[in-house]
Amino acid sequence: MSSSTYSQFVNHVRDIHRAQAIESVLEWDQETCMPRRGAAERAEQLALIAGIVHDRRTSDEFGGMIQRLAGSDAAGQDHVAATNIREMKRQYERAVRIPRQLVQELARTVALAKGAWVEAKRDSDFAKFAPHVERLLDLKRQVADLVGWGEERYDALMDEYEPGATSAAIQRVFDQLRAELVPFIQSLGRAPRQPDRSLLARHCPQAAQAELSRRFAAAIGFNFDAGRIDVSAHPFCSGTSPHDVRLTTRYREDYFPSALFGTLHEAGHGMYEQGLDPAHVGTPMGWAVSLGIHESQSLMWENMVGRSRPFWEHFYPDLQTAFPAMKDVPLDAFYFAVNAVTPSFIRVEADEATYNLHIVLRFGLERQMIAGTLAVRDIPDAWNAGMRDLLGVTPTSDAVGCLQDIHWSQGTFGYFPTYALGKLYAAQFFAAARRAMPDLDGTFRRGDFGPLLDWLRSNIHRHGQRYRAHELVKVVTGAELSHRPFMDYLAGKFRPLYGI
Amino acid sequence: MSSSTYSQFVNHVRDIHRAQAIESVLEWDQETCMPRRGAAERAEQLALIAGIVHDRRTSDEFGGMIQRLAGSDAAGQDHVAATNIREMKRQYERAVRIPRQLVQELARTVALAKGAWVEAKRDSDFAKFAPHVERLLDLKRQVADLVGWGEERYDALMDEYEPGATSAAIQRVFDQLRAELVPFIQSLGRAPRQPDRSLLARHCPQAAQAELSRRFAAAIGFNFDAGRIDVSAHPFCSGTSPHDVRLTTRYREDYFPSALFGTLHEAGHGMYEQGLDPAHVGTPMGWAVSLGIHESQSLMWENMVGRSRPFWEHFYPDLQTAFPAMKDVPLDAFYFAVNAVTPSFIRVEADEATYNLHIVLRFGLERQMIAGTLAVRDIPDAWNAGMRDLLGVTPTSDAVGCLQDIHWSQGTFGYFPTYALGKLYAAQFFAAARRAMPDLDGTFRRGDFGPLLDWLRSNIHRHGQRYRAHELVKVVTGAELSHRPFMDYLAGKFRPLYGI
Repeated sequence: MSSSTYSQFVNHVRDIHRAQAIESVLEWDQETCMPRRGAAERAEQLALIAGIVHDRRTSDEFGGMIQRLAGSDAAGQDHVAATNIREMKRQYERAVRIPRQLVQELARTVALAKGAWVEAKRDSDFAKFAPHVERLLDLKRQVADLVGWGEERYDALMDEYEPGATSAAIQRVFDQLRAELVPFIQSLGRAPRQPDRSLLARHCPQAAQAELSRRFAAAIGFNFDAGRIDVSAHPFCSGTSPHDVRLTTRYREDYFPSALFGTLHEAGHGMYEQGLDPAHVGTPMGWAVSLGIHESQSLMWENMVGRSRPFWEHFYPDLQTAFPAMKDVPLDAFYFAVNAVTPSFIRVEADEATYNLHIVLRFGLERQMIAGTLAVRDIPDAWNAGMRDLLGVTPTSDAVGCLQDIHWSQGTFGYFPTYALGKLYAAQFFAAARRAMPDLDGTFRRGDFGPLLDWLRSNIHRHGQRYRAHELVKVVTGAELSHRPFMDYLAGKFRPLYGI
Repeated sequence: MSSSTYSQFVNHVRDIHRAQAIESVLEWDQETCMPRRGAAERAEQLALIAGIVHDRRTSDEFGGMIQRLAGSDAAGQDHVAATNIREMKRQYERAVRIPRQLVQELARTVALAKGAWVEAKRDSDFAKFAPHVERLLDLKRQVADLVGWGEERYDALMDEYEPGATSAAIQRVFDQLRAELVPFIQSLGRAPRQPDRSLLARHCPQAAQAELSRRFAAAIGFNFDAGRIDVSAHPFCSGTSPHDVRLTTRYREDYFPSALFGTLHEAGHGMYEQGLDPAHVGTPMGWAVSLGIHESQSLMWENMVGRSRPFWEHFYPDLQTAFPAMKDVPLDAFYFAVNAVTPSFIRVEADEATYNLHIVLRFGLERQMIAGTLAVRDIPDAWNAGMRDLLGVTPTSDAVGCLQDIHWSQGTFGYFPTYALGKLYAAQFFAAARRAMPDLDGTFRRGDFGPLLDWLRSNIHRHGQRYRAHELVKVVTGAELSHRPFMDYLAGKFRPLYGI
């Protein structure tokens, strides 16, 4: 390999990443800052930059570099070069199959669909959103067919978010999970002890929530010199480099856990982005492995840390100071309330145990939507039927049913399964971290989250995309991915709480 | 003309504009939102998008379209097409004459000069900055020579900011202005009545200033569905389309006029951007005429409206409610204080009357600097001599003298005159508006700014770049640009106030 070819290649890859970073800034701006009427022009701006990204990702010049490098020594010797070449080759081969026109049409359609989703959700009227879903499904099916697929069209879409994952493999794990999880949740529902969730509905002013959320994010390790928090309709994390990572959250004065745990969740994503190796910024060695692995980080900080008793042994006095309404609530009652397991409508507010069933539902629906076996107009009914089967509840409106998530308005079919994978990865990683650091609870109790973060940094963050998700799980935990650590984690936490 | 060539041309022009709009969003974000550590990656993102803009503005393909269209019927018949072709031809011809290498060298030199300027200003030592000015003058002379010029090299530089303006024409107006303005300001200094400016130093909390500024901006017609206000170190207005216009301001709790009038000023810019014809977005027919015309809009709303007695007859009670510290200050004392005329060192803090003399000084010096008849080392002496002649004050240091403005460190020679032209345009437009609407004061007194805004919309904003600045002045006011309306405006306002 000529080293000048490799450095030319790296410069090209960094330029692609920078154009994508510009896209991210425009999208972040649209969700947090952009005036209402700016949507149409923003759609055009996003289409323009999407076209530029596409051109650079698919240029013959770039293809030539990849071909020269893939056949050279570099791909075998140095793991940095090998990773960068392998991943860009994969992306290149995917991208060249999708014509520029389709990419731009998708970007434009998404920008318009977002506005329609906001309105449809506000009016709880799926019919207003349906034509956009129809158009997006059609475009995404075209993408899948162009990219190519083996067993199932849906796999080609999932591959964008969780490279190497297949519907069949996920279905197997989800089936095992569902078989144990549904009865487990039912047994908690019949348990002798039950939490008093009404405690969490006490009025807590937004300003105090914002300050406390910010304090918790900083305490677990989110760096505000390289990041910020804003408000948006749907919380997200947008990272363009380890030095510019943006979280969003939302406030409900009658339900403070929404902002508090939402911020811990997004900060978990943010700390993964901030922990990526700055020396490899803009190249696969400086990127997160997959959305599933990303989600494992956010869920670990939100749930395994943020909803743990040791965390609250340290922070509960601070919360009581910030929220005078909570002054008379004992720690145990609070801890039980934030760990209440209750089948409910909203995925992002679902508890640790029921959450994955929300994903099982979406995974099933999306596979049928992409396959064309579920008509768009039938989505609301199918959604509600699924909710009844899995969680025993029926959404009272589309707004709290099939319109609740932003994802379909973004055309990101195949994204949802990564959330459930994230839960399974998180449990398996956390069990490994506990084995490596038996006093993890003690550090949390002292408000010291450095040991866990350092462990995540060196075992996960710093590798970038060196390993695929399933390889990383094996490297870090010594075992294949399984639903077992997750079910063990749930049992260990909720059986004593509920007294079963 | 083939109509498909024209629509291809319009698409290309809109793409250029969109890439520039993306640049603007990134710059706005950098000033208002970006985390501290994000600067290095942002510089790379901006360099990437600047390269994209340059390539599209100078591509052979684009040159070919322009050539075909310029020779066609379109350029003569339809004023929309004629304007768009004329202006893009001008921009294209300017851009292709400047080699990429010179553009890059300028960017590099500016980057170094900025740092040197900051240091030189901090140490009040012009000698540290002088070599950078020397280099920038040299590069800008090269630009002027490549672009081409008639009477004077400086004209080629001004043309970037005020197309069609010539030094000779501006000098004639400035000479007449100076002859009347200098003795007028001296007579105000000797007047029997003088304002008490210390009233404006009373403490007013930032939150109340922010709310009032926002209320005033909305009242005069700034549309918050298509815009927003944020905080930045230096106030600016960033407009990417009539539907997304962003103002910034800054707050000083010991000097509230800074935020209040600053917001009215930026809102004036913003309302021009919001008033451009959305049908022509991204093309010259949807762009502001020039920096001078832009400034005329901001100055009219800041001064002719915002510092008028009728405006405060309506709003002063609101101000007193918002700022309890002002409760005991009578309207007349307040009105006089916000209209104090005082020769001082700093341009950006100058009042309506003295401001233009700061510009007369800079215009004279810049012409000599570009012509090479004023040596860079002699700038501080020439500056101070000019300040004595024009304003009767001698700067106590270079920091408050020739080092005060950022412009030279950015190489933007030829920009300053647009500020003074803005003042003259504003007065001439406002006099025309008064003739068209004799009860303008009455509308202000009722808090109704719709009539003035509607007049500006239909007489100025909606034309985009159909007319050059000097033509627009004639179309709107029926006369050539003159210093007369400005002097009449000053006399009408300040003679009664100062009792002369």
